[in-house]
Amino acid sequence: MPTTELTGCSIIGGETVRGGAGTIHGVDPRTSSVLGPSYHQLGTDQLRIATAAAHEATSSFGNLDPSEHAQFLDKMAENIEAVRDELIERAMAETGLSRDRLQVEHRRTSNQLRLFASVVRRGDHRGVRIDPALPDREPLPRPDIRQRKIPVGPVVVFGASNFPLAFSTAGGDTASALAAGCPVIVKAHNAHPGTGELVGWAVTKAVQECGLHPGVFSLLYGAGSVIGQALVSDPLIKAVGFTGSRDAGTALMRTAAQRTEPIPVYAEMSSINPVIVFDSALDEDMDALAQAFVASVTGSSGQLCTVPGLIFVPEGIKGDAFATAVGRALSTTTGQTMLTEPIATSWTHGVETLASQDNVSLVGQGEPGPNKAAPAPAVYGTDLGTFTGNEALHREIFGAAALLVRYGSVAELKETVARMEGQLTATLHLTEASYDDALELLPVLEQRVGRILVNGWPTGVEVGHAMVHGGPFPATSEGRTTSVGTFAIERFLRPVAYQNLPQELLPEPLRHGNPWHLTQMIEGVITPPDSHR
Amino acid sequence: MPTTELTGCSIIGGETVRGGAGTIHGVDPRTSSVLGPSYHQLGTDQLRIATAAAHEATSSFGNLDPSEHAQFLDKMAENIEAVRDELIERAMAETGLSRDRLQVEHRRTSNQLRLFASVVRRGDHRGVRIDPALPDREPLPRPDIRQRKIPVGPVVVFGASNFPLAFSTAGGDTASALAAGCPVIVKAHNAHPGTGELVGWAVTKAVQECGLHPGVFSLLYGAGSVIGQALVSDPLIKAVGFTGSRDAGTALMRTAAQRTEPIPVYAEMSSINPVIVFDSALDEDMDALAQAFVASVTGSSGQLCTVPGLIFVPEGIKGDAFATAVGRALSTTTGQTMLTEPIATSWTHGVETLASQDNVSLVGQGEPGPNKAAPAPAVYGTDLGTFTGNEALHREIFGAAALLVRYGSVAELKETVARMEGQLTATLHLTEASYDDALELLPVLEQRVGRILVNGWPTGVEVGHAMVHGGPFPATSEGRTTSVGTFAIERFLRPVAYQNLPQELLPEPLRHGNPWHLTQMIEGVITPPDSHR
Repeated sequence: MPTTELTGCSIIGGETVRGGAGTIHGVDPRTSSVLGPSYHQLGTDQLRIATAAAHEATSSFGNLDPSEHAQFLDKMAENIEAVRDELIERAMAETGLSRDRLQVEHRRTSNQLRLFASVVRRGDHRGVRIDPALPDREPLPRPDIRQRKIPVGPVVVFGASNFPLAFSTAGGDTASALAAGCPVIVKAHNAHPGTGELVGWAVTKAVQECGLHPGVFSLLYGAGSVIGQALVSDPLIKAVGFTGSRDAGTALMRTAAQRTEPIPVYAEMSSINPVIVFDSALDEDMDALAQAFVASVTGSSGQLCTVPGLIFVPEGIKGDAFATAVGRALSTTTGQTMLTEPIATSWTHGVETLASQDNVSLVGQGEPGPNKAAPAPAVYGTDLGTFTGNEALHREIFGAAALLVRYGSVAELKETVARMEGQLTATLHLTEASYDDALELLPVLEQRVGRILVNGWPTGVEVGHAMVHGGPFPATSEGRTTSVGTFAIERFLRPVAYQNLPQELLPEPLRHGNPWHLTQMIEGVITPPDSHR
Repeated sequence: MPTTELTGCSIIGGETVRGGAGTIHGVDPRTSSVLGPSYHQLGTDQLRIATAAAHEATSSFGNLDPSEHAQFLDKMAENIEAVRDELIERAMAETGLSRDRLQVEHRRTSNQLRLFASVVRRGDHRGVRIDPALPDREPLPRPDIRQRKIPVGPVVVFGASNFPLAFSTAGGDTASALAAGCPVIVKAHNAHPGTGELVGWAVTKAVQECGLHPGVFSLLYGAGSVIGQALVSDPLIKAVGFTGSRDAGTALMRTAAQRTEPIPVYAEMSSINPVIVFDSALDEDMDALAQAFVASVTGSSGQLCTVPGLIFVPEGIKGDAFATAVGRALSTTTGQTMLTEPIATSWTHGVETLASQDNVSLVGQGEPGPNKAAPAPAVYGTDLGTFTGNEALHREIFGAAALLVRYGSVAELKETVARMEGQLTATLHLTEASYDDALELLPVLEQRVGRILVNGWPTGVEVGHAMVHGGPFPATSEGRTTSVGTFAIERFLRPVAYQNLPQELLPEPLRHGNPWHLTQMIEGVITPPDSHR
């Protein structure tokens, strides 16, 4: 199957399957023009082929040795790089995102797969723990007990509209689930169906080239409320990765909780990412700070999970001047095309609701962009009391908008922050003069967020080993994890203990001599493989 | 407060609080006699003091240094040892369990606390990950990102009826949550209120002696369906540990899922722990095998989560002889007093239902014990087809009963096992002659259970670093964890990332020089503290 020819079909276990439940198509948000081909939506009756194939693939895929497993992830990266140019063209047409932005995202997508390949090759996520037998222990001998983690089974991934590459078909959730050894079924995002298919074939090709079971990967087109819900209900599915809205995420959480066998849903949903500007930060270059804030709010048309939708600024003359600088920085911006017209419309409604609240006034806005999907970026302002008392001011507005809240004392701010919902990030801007104030706030912020930044901006999430892109509900459905970075692999693993198994029956990574050269916890002590050599 | 004087009150933040919603009392199941004092049940209006105190304790308790934190767990162990004799007397009266069994359990309870103290002292559960800054990286510099795990916040623990010490007030869930740094509120088990109070004061004393915030621990008396549900609904509670029935566990899961902010419930519920006897095992001492099986079924009156309630035995002459040997071994047993009369009644109903199914017949039974709470142990038998087709035969019967299922081929057995619900354990009995058959079954068993044993018995769960006392639903609500062993601490921890924080603002364990001497993941490589010294 040449990757350049789009079929408009789902890919199930390496084969095209034409859905029988109507069609959708890509739309260029810059021009409102329809993009071919039509995509045939699957009905729920067609899903079972995909879930059965994924189920069948579970055992062989989950037991690959580290080198074969890593090669597959590297091959995915290679195949996605091989279709780079057509992929970026198609993604630009389907999302309105700029070439520069999509080039960065394309690189991030393949780098992320290679990073997970390195994790798989090292193998430490297998979490091997060994408590050797103590035959002479009194009053009873201790058996030999060995623990390792195994993949949980087939995972359904729902990609994000705002990252058509790095958080969609072969994005972070797919990469971490495949790295864990779980077959993946992607519910294709209907806002970028062609981009999805191009990536889908790149992955399918990697499955074939590596000689893996074809059920390791499928890409399904269909309505989220129909086939999405049906997939999450399917008894063969063991976990769900999701990035999107709070409403859609909580709907999947409910479905998963109501199954006969409940399963985890890892949903990354809603966050307004507070920025706290301390007084001391306003002694520095205030214009540069305001410009950097506005750049973080308006980049990618504000369509990032970590966009700083809320900024706390001190009351007083310096804070007034900063607010003015924000307004000035905004006035030089122009609306960029949003991902879809409905998303732009939803942004407009969100901003209108914000603007209509008592005690909320405009701080500044930019110019509208070249089409109706490119509204003018805007920042509104209010005071701490109003913000604290009005839940409508705590809602995420997906796009280039923010609320600037003036606060009197750090003590009052602490009260407010303690009562906010869970967030992906919190950012502090300060100099040494405010460290004591920051130390007051940090314990409260830790309880509310997944990542804390100093003197930076939360957008531009680094993909690494230490990253946490998570946080308490509703930022995510499960704050004990991350959806960016290598720690994400833990979501799709489950420990199994083996008691007194003879060497011949033990899984290879647990056998004597540590044949996979893994870091092991021996009697509670973490022991890298080098210690044995 | 002298530990020997029972108050009949809840302990909230170190103070006695007398409930206003009626009373309950302990009952000696051996004699049906009522044990004083009366225990005053709390109403839901009285819970807020406990949850608010736990919430207030979160920050100071969560930020103890490893040595102070470990000392507290050691002190708990010490205080529980100090009341050993009165504790065992009271537990015998409230549960009917034997002195020997309770002595072992008492030791296990304090050992478990000391084991967690050693984990806390080492500190590796903080999961430190460091990706150092790369200021010269192209196209963009990389910030410094550091990750550590923090406690999730206040945890509610529901103890088990069958382990009044090791899985109740200061049992595995409490120990692991306190080790993670989470304040704990225990909902006292109504079947052993006095035992609970004795342990409650031992813990409270440790809180006081270590100068901790009194909200670190509370023990509440009340109806599970009233205050249990209310506690799980309380917005200040962040996680739940539970050991008990499937109905009660799933009720708590539903409540937790329906909260505005859903929280995890770690419930250990229901398992029949299949044992698979391969043909080769019957060439050995068949009587010894049958006796050991019966001992595992009948020990502690069968009231263990891991009791082998199901044994698969080959068809044919050797299997017939083994079934006869099981019947013979059973005939020498006598019923032991169960924990409560309602539990004994429920066991009787379960066995009657089992016995009344088509194609199910008695394999053997013992003699009834000295009172009406001590029914005769029993094993029933059926064939694989009947077992596979009748869900009633898959239900846990809590107590000394098991089902012996005759199978034809390993291939048929594999089909059946693949369709069973999640289990805590699976056990294989075999010699080398059956290794190939075992290798056929193992991949399927791994998908269904948390622990696999060879030539042993699942009862007598070792508390160590490698143990998994978990498994897919309904064995537990969350198969990615364990409720026994040190890995259990992970249930109550959540990662937070710190980006470009100056040293003065970084949490101590993340600062330069590794002041807590933790194992760190640096750029993805696990690095023990010795490597730095």
